[in-house]
Amino acid sequence: MNVIIMAGGVGTRFWPLSRARQPKQFLQMFGNRSLLEETLMRIAPLVEERDVFTVVHEAHRALAEEILRGRDVRLLTEPLARSTAPCIGLGLVHILEERGDSPVVVLPADHYIGEVEIFQETIRRAIALVDDGGVATIGIVPTRPETGYGYIQAGKPISVPVKAFHVTAFVEKPSLEVATRYLSEGGYYWNAGIFVFRAQTMMEEIKRCLPDTYEQLQYLRQHLGKSGYDTALRKAYQAITPISIDYGVMEKTSANVYVIPGQFPWSDVGSWQSVFEMRHGERDDEGNLVDGDALLFDCKNTFVHARSARLIGCIGVEDLCIIDTPDALLVCHLECSQDVRRCVECLQEKGLEHLT
Amino acid sequence: MNVIIMAGGVGTRFWPLSRARQPKQFLQMFGNRSLLEETLMRIAPLVEERDVFTVVHEAHRALAEEILRGRDVRLLTEPLARSTAPCIGLGLVHILEERGDSPVVVLPADHYIGEVEIFQETIRRAIALVDDGGVATIGIVPTRPETGYGYIQAGKPISVPVKAFHVTAFVEKPSLEVATRYLSEGGYYWNAGIFVFRAQTMMEEIKRCLPDTYEQLQYLRQHLGKSGYDTALRKAYQAITPISIDYGVMEKTSANVYVIPGQFPWSDVGSWQSVFEMRHGERDDEGNLVDGDALLFDCKNTFVHARSARLIGCIGVEDLCIIDTPDALLVCHLECSQDVRRCVECLQEKGLEHLT
Repeated sequence: MNVIIMAGGVGTRFWPLSRARQPKQFLQMFGNRSLLEETLMRIAPLVEERDVFTVVHEAHRALAEEILRGRDVRLLTEPLARSTAPCIGLGLVHILEERGDSPVVVLPADHYIGEVEIFQETIRRAIALVDDGGVATIGIVPTRPETGYGYIQAGKPISVPVKAFHVTAFVEKPSLEVATRYLSEGGYYWNAGIFVFRAQTMMEEIKRCLPDTYEQLQYLRQHLGKSGYDTALRKAYQAITPISIDYGVMEKTSANVYVIPGQFPWSDVGSWQSVFEMRHGERDDEGNLVDGDALLFDCKNTFVHARSARLIGCIGVEDLCIIDTPDALLVCHLECSQDVRRCVECLQEKGLEHLT
Repeated sequence: MNVIIMAGGVGTRFWPLSRARQPKQFLQMFGNRSLLEETLMRIAPLVEERDVFTVVHEAHRALAEEILRGRDVRLLTEPLARSTAPCIGLGLVHILEERGDSPVVVLPADHYIGEVEIFQETIRRAIALVDDGGVATIGIVPTRPETGYGYIQAGKPISVPVKAFHVTAFVEKPSLEVATRYLSEGGYYWNAGIFVFRAQTMMEEIKRCLPDTYEQLQYLRQHLGKSGYDTALRKAYQAITPISIDYGVMEKTSANVYVIPGQFPWSDVGSWQSVFEMRHGERDDEGNLVDGDALLFDCKNTFVHARSARLIGCIGVEDLCIIDTPDALLVCHLECSQDVRRCVECLQEKGLEHLT
């Protein structure tokens, strides 16, 4: 079995803590390990380290090497951000060349997963399910009508001793009304971006659904282990159109697609508000959460990240997140924390990329 | 005529911009001049520079010298903070010795005054009024039932061509109910801490009302211009009990006390909220006011002081003041800005005086 960890993201949702030079997956969002390291540790009991392929943007090679130090994990770099389909394709090229056809688990590097043993057992079942072909996804059993996630609609159950369903559709982020209906009807799961398949199965689906991408991957495969690899990689990535695996393959594939319900706590860690809510156990009696040192007076439900050696005093504020870094500060209503990207976009427009 | 500018305050209400080492009167709260400099410029047309005595805490001598540079203004320092009665007494000791009995105007250094010509005309009238004795105060005509100010109750009008009244009482900060009554009844004025008298008149009132303070001032007077002055000053201040001129003299004096209505805009600049409100003309369409550079999205009625070379992003916040300095940050609901001292007190308790 092999694992592809997708750690190539360059998100903006955790500005100013996350930056282009240090995206979310390299940050310690919970406790003292980065999300990437948490992802590595979560899958470790299921796989040999040398069979784990971590894919990062080449700009983050040093950050990734720091985290992977002492681990026998493979590090693959992408010269350009091209979304998830090319990222998985890159991992598959290496796996097929070096390991041959074998089971592959694809994991995002920047999600939160609780109850790790349930997660691991779910992955084991998914691997068994796709041994004869097809693609399995893990669908998170929804606990609220979340409008920030994509959903997977489950169809007929499949006739194996694993609880799983054929997938009827992948659905984009729904309205609150639609999400509420999904929850009451049942049979809908959150799309957690976790995919399990045999390497050859997915490569054939890429060939069928994304022939141009496939062609570039084949071109790249010819250069594996050769001195021209880096040049070929850049050339291939320049030719590849960015597309997600969901859009590019999962919604079009003629392979069997299954969803296995995942009964473990999960979050895509999509905003400061989501982090604040997930850490509810750490909040004080007034619902405040402080990382570092800050003085709070008459504050409620406020999240202060104070790690910049500056003193922060807060008086009479409510429902805020205050994220302080040495060169940039965010003061944001928690319910607006999905708008943080607007700061980043504005900084880019102003030519202040060093702050993004 | 002489002027005593009381610039000895060590307030905490503008933390973190104001600090023990740089109180409000040395800050540029409006425009690009400090409040002390504004006070000096406001009185300049009425008085020779050499007849202006600025009293500061000795810790702020260098700051004051910087502001007074190029001016022929006298600088007096206090070794200890002892409130306004000793401060005025110190000025009087110098004035009586060097100038003899003559008119004196006492001005706080840290207030806001608009329509300077009306202010100047009011001072001129006050000087004329007390030429034969008595103490005149300028009472600001109230525009709202403010509970943060002391009030002066006016009694009978006096029979001079100046509009003025005998003072019936000095009243402490009232409740909202009482302040509202004051406003509807009329005849009450805000106590702006401005006093006008002849030097000998006030020194005699200090002798009568505060005999111990008077004794120390006489002791000090014997050392004026001598090598032992600094030692005598410290000794005298150590012996003096802190007391305000209002409490210590004005409420007990047997001299005639007059109030002259001041028809000019005035504020004691008592909180971040008051600064924000006074600068309403500078606010944008959403009521936001930004000093320096900050990115605001969907914010209302928010005051950002961004002068620390850090970028500040604000999203979806309302009614906040955000005061950013290199080593400390305040995020405060505007209506709680009178509680800023709690931060300072807490820092003192924690032994973090360098931040206060």
